Amino acid sequence: MTKQQLFAQIQKKRSFLCVGLDTDITKIPEHLLEKEDPIYAFNKEIIDKTASYCVAYKPNLAFYESQGLTGWLAFEKTVAYIRQRYPDQFIIADAKRGDIGNTSEMYASTFFDTARVDAVTVAPYMGEDSVTPFLKYNGKWVILLALTSNKGSQDFQLLQDQNGERLFEKVLRQSQAWASAEQMMYVVGATQGRLFEEVRKIVPDHFLLVPGVGAQGGSLEEVCHYGMNRECGLLVNSSRAIIYADTTETFAETAGKEARKLQEEMAGMLEKYL
Amino acid sequence: MTKQQLFAQIQKKRSFLCVGLDTDITKIPEHLLEKEDPIYAFNKEIIDKTASYCVAYKPNLAFYESQGLTGWLAFEKTVAYIRQRYPDQFIIADAKRGDIGNTSEMYASTFFDTARVDAVTVAPYMGEDSVTPFLKYNGKWVILLALTSNKGSQDFQLLQDQNGERLFEKVLRQSQAWASAEQMMYVVGATQGRLFEEVRKIVPDHFLLVPGVGAQGGSLEEVCHYGMNRECGLLVNSSRAIIYADTTETFAETAGKEARKLQEEMAGMLEKYL
Repeated sequence: MTKQQLFAQIQKKRSFLCVGLDTDITKIPEHLLEKEDPIYAFNKEIIDKTASYCVAYKPNLAFYESQGLTGWLAFEKTVAYIRQRYPDQFIIADAKRGDIGNTSEMYASTFFDTARVDAVTVAPYMGEDSVTPFLKYNGKWVILLALTSNKGSQDFQLLQDQNGERLFEKVLRQSQAWASAEQMMYVVGATQGRLFEEVRKIVPDHFLLVPGVGAQGGSLEEVCHYGMNRECGLLVNSSRAIIYADTTETFAETAGKEARKLQEEMAGMLEKYL
Repeated sequence: MTKQQLFAQIQKKRSFLCVGLDTDITKIPEHLLEKEDPIYAFNKEIIDKTASYCVAYKPNLAFYESQGLTGWLAFEKTVAYIRQRYPDQFIIADAKRGDIGNTSEMYASTFFDTARVDAVTVAPYMGEDSVTPFLKYNGKWVILLALTSNKGSQDFQLLQDQNGERLFEKVLRQSQAWASAEQMMYVVGATQGRLFEEVRKIVPDHFLLVPGVGAQGGSLEEVCHYGMNRECGLLVNSSRAIIYADTTETFAETAGKEARKLQEEMAGMLEKYL
């Protein structure tokens, strides 16, 4: 999917919501545990009820891997289901991979040839040759960690060099030599508030994937105020606040309602800031 | 496995070799492709011929994941095979994971509860709460990326802060508050040469996992000269130079010979520097 196509979806749906499919087998409604593949069954219902309100899905690989083979199968089936039923959705494998060149090539192949998602999150610590193998795929995206939403983001990402440039700024600046805004996005946590202004000074045109609204406490208003650009430029993710809003048999309907609430807020933000 | 037990193995075998099981389906001998599980068949033979000369195995997850379900199964079977036949071997899942706390918990469970390896490589970019979930497992290890072997290690890892402290030094220093040398090791690339001296100033007692000897061109002598401590403190990895030394039917014998050559060099280094 191109940047233009993604923006077109955002305009059409008046939403820049990404639903995080962090499907934890210990948290899904009991009645699903009898199904042959409870994780996939859960995802399918969540997807059916939320697809009208979001433009992207983001399965986090950790939740699938922790179930071994069964989990990987559920991940692959989930991606295939979205591809088939909702071909306009942007699919992000939240995997935070990154390794030396020949190894990153393998990871790129895993996600782009085998699983056929649109984008993969990648960690920048190992530098250019750990990222570029993911960029060899036409129409596919790298979403590079820049400024994450968690407490530990303070440990290294804010480190200032002798010119006052912080590590996340260096990551943003330097990685622009590796790919354009047509193939690279950045993770910037909703909890970072006004630092979105600093981010936008360096990457005015890029899409940002924004976790941390909801369970982690970030503010959508603040994110939009400081982060939105003229093509929206935001994919705001919510996982737990949507998919675990209700843990009874009505979980999917409730998830749909939560997604719709966020979509309506987002429509307002698009009205206000775009 | 404890640090003492690992050192005991090193003394017993006169080796600190880690064999990297980066098993690439496109590179294994043709005759194995007829087998039901070619990756596992390849690994089993490699392991049988190299186990006397090494103290650790390091499957890199990228190579397994790229094969989807089949690959994961081969990974799990490989770990189980080593556990059963060679219980004294230290098994490292080279996965370079790291995510927000609740997600890193999932990754930790994947590798320590499901796959039952001894150690996982973890990327430090997201800071403390992305690492500590891996440390809750007794007798299990985190191997944190500090100064990697690839060209891209220059991009961010050498960034100096206003006091002249480089990012990899900050990672080494700060992470010591999260775990002791009994539960944490660091990745330091053999290609980094004299920087091992700087690393040892900060972490004199820790084990270092050292990739980059062999195909990547690092020098074993230099690594030992600057990096060895009184409990050896090194696990030197070789992947491609051992497992792909020969791509005919005699691949495993040749791998064994290559491993033995390295073991003999290592015995000399232990004699010289320990």
